[in-house]
Amino acid sequence: MNSKKPSRRKFLASGAAVAGAAAAAVRPASAQTAAPAAAPAPTSEAGKKGIKELIAYGERSRFVTSLREPADGRPSPDAFGLTFHVVTPLGESVGSITPSSLHYVAAHRGFYVPEIDPKEHRLMIHGMVDRPLIFTMDELKCFPSVTRVHFLECIGNRSTRTRNTVAQTHGMTSCSEWTGVLLSTLLKEAGVQSGGSWIVSEGGEEVKGASSVSLSKAMDDCLVAWGQNGEPVRPQQGFPLRLIVPGFEGIYQTKYLRRVKVVDRYYMTYNDYGHLQKDPKVVALTNQIGPKSVITFPAGGQQLKGPGFYEISGLAWSGGGAVRRVEVSTDGGRMWKEAELRTPTYRMAHTRFALPWTWDGKECEILSRCTDELGTVQPTRAQAAKYWNEPLTPQFGVKGADNTIQVWKIASDGSVHNGNFV
Amino acid sequence: MNSKKPSRRKFLASGAAVAGAAAAAVRPASAQTAAPAAAPAPTSEAGKKGIKELIAYGERSRFVTSLREPADGRPSPDAFGLTFHVVTPLGESVGSITPSSLHYVAAHRGFYVPEIDPKEHRLMIHGMVDRPLIFTMDELKCFPSVTRVHFLECIGNRSTRTRNTVAQTHGMTSCSEWTGVLLSTLLKEAGVQSGGSWIVSEGGEEVKGASSVSLSKAMDDCLVAWGQNGEPVRPQQGFPLRLIVPGFEGIYQTKYLRRVKVVDRYYMTYNDYGHLQKDPKVVALTNQIGPKSVITFPAGGQQLKGPGFYEISGLAWSGGGAVRRVEVSTDGGRMWKEAELRTPTYRMAHTRFALPWTWDGKECEILSRCTDELGTVQPTRAQAAKYWNEPLTPQFGVKGADNTIQVWKIASDGSVHNGNFV
Repeated sequence: MNSKKPSRRKFLASGAAVAGAAAAAVRPASAQTAAPAAAPAPTSEAGKKGIKELIAYGERSRFVTSLREPADGRPSPDAFGLTFHVVTPLGESVGSITPSSLHYVAAHRGFYVPEIDPKEHRLMIHGMVDRPLIFTMDELKCFPSVTRVHFLECIGNRSTRTRNTVAQTHGMTSCSEWTGVLLSTLLKEAGVQSGGSWIVSEGGEEVKGASSVSLSKAMDDCLVAWGQNGEPVRPQQGFPLRLIVPGFEGIYQTKYLRRVKVVDRYYMTYNDYGHLQKDPKVVALTNQIGPKSVITFPAGGQQLKGPGFYEISGLAWSGGGAVRRVEVSTDGGRMWKEAELRTPTYRMAHTRFALPWTWDGKECEILSRCTDELGTVQPTRAQAAKYWNEPLTPQFGVKGADNTIQVWKIASDGSVHNGNFV
Repeated sequence: MNSKKPSRRKFLASGAAVAGAAAAAVRPASAQTAAPAAAPAPTSEAGKKGIKELIAYGERSRFVTSLREPADGRPSPDAFGLTFHVVTPLGESVGSITPSSLHYVAAHRGFYVPEIDPKEHRLMIHGMVDRPLIFTMDELKCFPSVTRVHFLECIGNRSTRTRNTVAQTHGMTSCSEWTGVLLSTLLKEAGVQSGGSWIVSEGGEEVKGASSVSLSKAMDDCLVAWGQNGEPVRPQQGFPLRLIVPGFEGIYQTKYLRRVKVVDRYYMTYNDYGHLQKDPKVVALTNQIGPKSVITFPAGGQQLKGPGFYEISGLAWSGGGAVRRVEVSTDGGRMWKEAELRTPTYRMAHTRFALPWTWDGKECEILSRCTDELGTVQPTRAQAAKYWNEPLTPQFGVKGADNTIQVWKIASDGSVHNGNFV
């Protein structure tokens, strides 16, 4: 079988820049001189030494050190502050799923999590319903279940020019495969009464973290989730039960869910800082996230080794539905190229995008913009300032969810920095 | 808004059995008497006590105790045997992704894993190629990457009537989101020479676990993976680099991949027990897995609490492509109902299926069968015995990959047992 010529031709035809650049990226010296018999440095010494890994529940390599770190500007977890946030190390992310151990955490009552025995946990559906119901975990699992991939994002996830890594600018978004029962299934079981138009969800935290959600959203796609990435929801994510309100900001995703009350109006809760706004623009941009995207490689704090071929890679998502398109610019926003979407475009889920790119070694700015299924396009900071009728200064802050375009600046030495100059 | 009547009607119309049974499943006593103001037992005591969880890298709840256990009939990991296998606790699985910590492990050289520093690791492509190449991990990551969901399954994953849990009968299959570069990209870069028709892949283990794969498969969909479920491949899965040969039995998925040699024939390797068979039927059934399915709830060792509504749930997969259909029988195989597919039907990936079901409390047998995109249907043990022209006895063993239908028997006390009587 001579697969060489046709396959080479096809490859070159489909991506000449890739092929040429990749050849430059592999180390030419070793590639040229490697005799077929000369295998790479053997790892058998390491093999002989070996490590006794946990067999029952595996662990990662000691060479893998990605960690969540406190969000810039928030009290450190060690300070036992009431509010703390830790961010997902997006700069080291691959694919579309966030490992559960690295899912961002935002908490407003310190970083203790309720230690809930799932056998004792109950969920009550009550208020304006025909049949108030209380469910055990086992009973909930008897209902038809669904599995869906959704991102969660804190509205505090906002770029500034003062933070330099993609973990710090965008690390308060994460994406999981959630499994549970649709809230609509439980509400139909209870029978929503005439006049019921909102729900209040309550969690089992000390201050009973609660949020008001419209009944139409509750009946649409909200999920009472017990599963996350193939195992029970993690404690920091609300074990044993979390309400998922797809596309809405993180605070609606009630952890330790224990009560859903059907009511006839929006109820104020502990979580209502900023949700009851007079400005309809703010209201419109407060619940729902995006469309949004960010390049995770090359990103602030990372280092290119020199001119040559790279793959620009990043994540895109939208609270308005599925990602339709991501464009990438490598010249500060003058020219845009359509990136490839490398993972499925689920609604309200992270989608991995990528664009092969040859860096010529000159200073440049790279950025990405997302268009979602509604046709909404991610704005620049300048566009956002114009929308809010405010001057574009470094102090300008987007009200509501900030989905503005992140610029990364690559210096001629290959170092990458936050390029949001204003 | 009166959402009660239309939604109830719609729900009842679409699944009367579900609605009726679910009402029975919720505890009628508490449901009837619960006053809206009487919240479930508060968890605030637990909240006050709290636990200081690992912030940097989160952990699961102490109430979640799913573990991998040694496969029945294999030397225990503690015995330092050359061969050991630990199985995924499929009975507690949700969704389609296996948590990396619970991915099954099959090893033939003891359970030490090479401790490889990714900075030192190299992959060599050589043999019948124009340009032998050696890649560092960083260089590999410059190539266009792909992210794909694939199952891995050990050919030792075979049902018997002597094992009683779904972990023991089917736990040597797991499913991950893998990220890496297509092997075809690297082979095209090296330039396969005329006459190259097979590859031999070699891992960094002591005995250099190796497998021969046809060049056509290698150029089709094989993946050189560094990412698993959003983070680096786990050590027990081949950190830092694993060859994924989608749909083929586990032993082809070379861990600690360090060498791919293009050759002109099938090469014998350490792993070749049973691959060079004279019987073409065995050859045909040795490489490629499935179509296959198994019910994970209710399954052997589990316990139903009494008559009422349940959701039968399980996993289906095929080495031949995507799952097209899964049928479930609750009467020993006389009547079949089409199950719902609850997760996307990726090619060579686990797909979650489910069927709402009301158990009348009588002894019964439940089973599932998968049809894949090629139209191939999962066989019964009787069909397999006929195919092999052997008598159907308890001792009958399927040669090659065993994808026969698993029967679970539910006793009138709700206990579930292996129902593979022969």
